[in-house]
Amino acid sequence: MLKIEHIGLAVKQFDTAIPLFEQLLNTPCYKVENVASEQVNTAFFQKGETKIELLESTSPDGIIARFIEKKGEGMHHIAFEVADIETEMKRLSDAGFTLLNPVPKKGADNKLVCFVHPKDTNGVLIELCQEASS
Amino acid sequence: MLKIEHIGLAVKQFDTAIPLFEQLLNTPCYKVENVASEQVNTAFFQKGETKIELLESTSPDGIIARFIEKKGEGMHHIAFEVADIETEMKRLSDAGFTLLNPVPKKGADNKLVCFVHPKDTNGVLIELCQEASS
Repeated sequence: MLKIEHIGLAVKQFDTAIPLFEQLLNTPCYKVENVASEQVNTAFFQKGETKIELLESTSPDGIIARFIEKKGEGMHHIAFEVADIETEMKRLSDAGFTLLNPVPKKGADNKLVCFVHPKDTNGVLIELCQEASS
Repeated sequence: MLKIEHIGLAVKQFDTAIPLFEQLLNTPCYKVENVASEQVNTAFFQKGETKIELLESTSPDGIIARFIEKKGEGMHHIAFEVADIETEMKRLSDAGFTLLNPVPKKGADNKLVCFVHPKDTNGVLIELCQEASS
């Protein structure tokens, strides 16, 4: 795990949340991207070496909509950049952590990603991510 | 706001959480510090330019104990390093954000800190922090 690549925040609506985070963070949103497979829109802000990623559900049944229904808006996950995602997945799996996807999947921002079950990590949803080959 | 200084995670017990996060993050906990005024113990791990700060309540009535009772263990706050905390507090206050402490207070890790009310930030508790003069 090299650094914190991004922090994912679940929000209800980009039309109010994006200008609010632009003001809060004092930096513009530099990219909005839809990830159809996850039923989310993503919006990115850079702070130092880490991104803040806002997550907005595109469906009332989507994973972010269900998260907000259960827990309210707020912090959703922490993503760590790794050099080799398969090596890191094996290291964590061997150590007894439960991976939510057994093979890396395509995430936002041209990344290969894997999530670790929060039941094994004191309630914190952890994402591993590696830049995908273009 | 210069960078993400740390991410605060609420956990029930250091005796299990510290070894777990050492394994997860693949890095040793380098400091444990009590912050009596906040009724918490803090434990730090470094990843790139950002720290992971575990928070354990020292009292059943402490703010972290009450957070866990209400929401469960997990992500508690994001702290941004600022060059001048009073300037940043004024900027946010003028923009309509509610500050939880009107003057900077002493936090863990030799920092002056101020929290922004999560009702104004889509449920995300934001901390501003500035290195205190020694």
